[in-house]
Amino acid sequence: MLTIYGMGVSGNCYKLQMLLAQLKLACRWVEVDSANGETRTPEFLARNPNGKVPVLELEDGRILAESNAILCFLAEGTDLLPEDHWQRALVLQWLFFEQYSHEPKIAVARFINLFLAEDHPRRGELPRLVEAGHEALALMENHLSAGRAFFVGDSATVADIALFAYTHCAEDGGFDLSGYPELLAWLARVRSLSGFVPMKS
Amino acid sequence: MLTIYGMGVSGNCYKLQMLLAQLKLACRWVEVDSANGETRTPEFLARNPNGKVPVLELEDGRILAESNAILCFLAEGTDLLPEDHWQRALVLQWLFFEQYSHEPKIAVARFINLFLAEDHPRRGELPRLVEAGHEALALMENHLSAGRAFFVGDSATVADIALFAYTHCAEDGGFDLSGYPELLAWLARVRSLSGFVPMKS
Repeated sequence: MLTIYGMGVSGNCYKLQMLLAQLKLACRWVEVDSANGETRTPEFLARNPNGKVPVLELEDGRILAESNAILCFLAEGTDLLPEDHWQRALVLQWLFFEQYSHEPKIAVARFINLFLAEDHPRRGELPRLVEAGHEALALMENHLSAGRAFFVGDSATVADIALFAYTHCAEDGGFDLSGYPELLAWLARVRSLSGFVPMKS
Repeated sequence: MLTIYGMGVSGNCYKLQMLLAQLKLACRWVEVDSANGETRTPEFLARNPNGKVPVLELEDGRILAESNAILCFLAEGTDLLPEDHWQRALVLQWLFFEQYSHEPKIAVARFINLFLAEDHPRRGELPRLVEAGHEALALMENHLSAGRAFFVGDSATVADIALFAYTHCAEDGGFDLSGYPELLAWLARVRSLSGFVPMKS
């Protein structure tokens, strides 16, 4: 059986919960509390020297890190990762966009806002993160406004799963989504997918 | 013919120059100077609303952004992107590592160090970037020290190309590589690949 080392409140880990539920894949889930240093223990670092969740462990002990690489690995051969060369390239484009231009702004703003003290110095980063996060959200809104139901092609892919993970809880980071009607409609479409599961809280 | 909109001194664009040279792919290169706002013009934003180089344009006008997505698209069917499901997953793992844990530290430190004024306030970010960049370099060193010639499998892949792009010029950002013998040996191995081209300067 597959094992995932993950943390319920992490959007990067939630991506895998969404995928597993949609694909009806059985998996052992080992909760790792990074807030309490559990991703920095020698045991965890032997699995992922980068000290991050999620990590996928195959039955034979092979290890894969990076949420979006795990999404692609598990979705291979399903409709969630198109076979077509161009469509697949676009899925990867959005996955890299998510990890470079979206998550480091929107997820980090959420982390600071939800988990750090009111007087923590990192709160000073929030205005810049919120500005850059809104640029990512506006780009997504604009992409969807061209009559697209999903980010690539006509049905959901791992690009939608990856982008949903931190967009649906962007308000935790101080982002008001009411100005993004296409994004709100897309969030509702993802929530209505067969096998959708909400994020653990 | 393929067109790439890129900037010669950008490591993300250099990845594509390396790939094109190794695959002997012909390509039209359009130089875009992001330092002079050329990635923020309406014409460029129509191609990539994210305002970043590189961008690949196919002959029929289709557009692909994100350097690592372009690498995978162009390398499909070649030895630089393994067909094997697991090997490909590991390549993606390193590509996402590069864009999340490596480039935002090592490339950004280089940018600040090379291109911003001596008294620019962003120079205050350098100590934190250098510390985090060294974590990425140490992780790479450790991975290679297990007798690996390349990051995935026994021959070069797009993972090596992506990681080489900003590692080989990390000293521009204030990183001393002399403490990373495995990394230096790997840099030399990549430089000795058939079709290797140095970065434009």
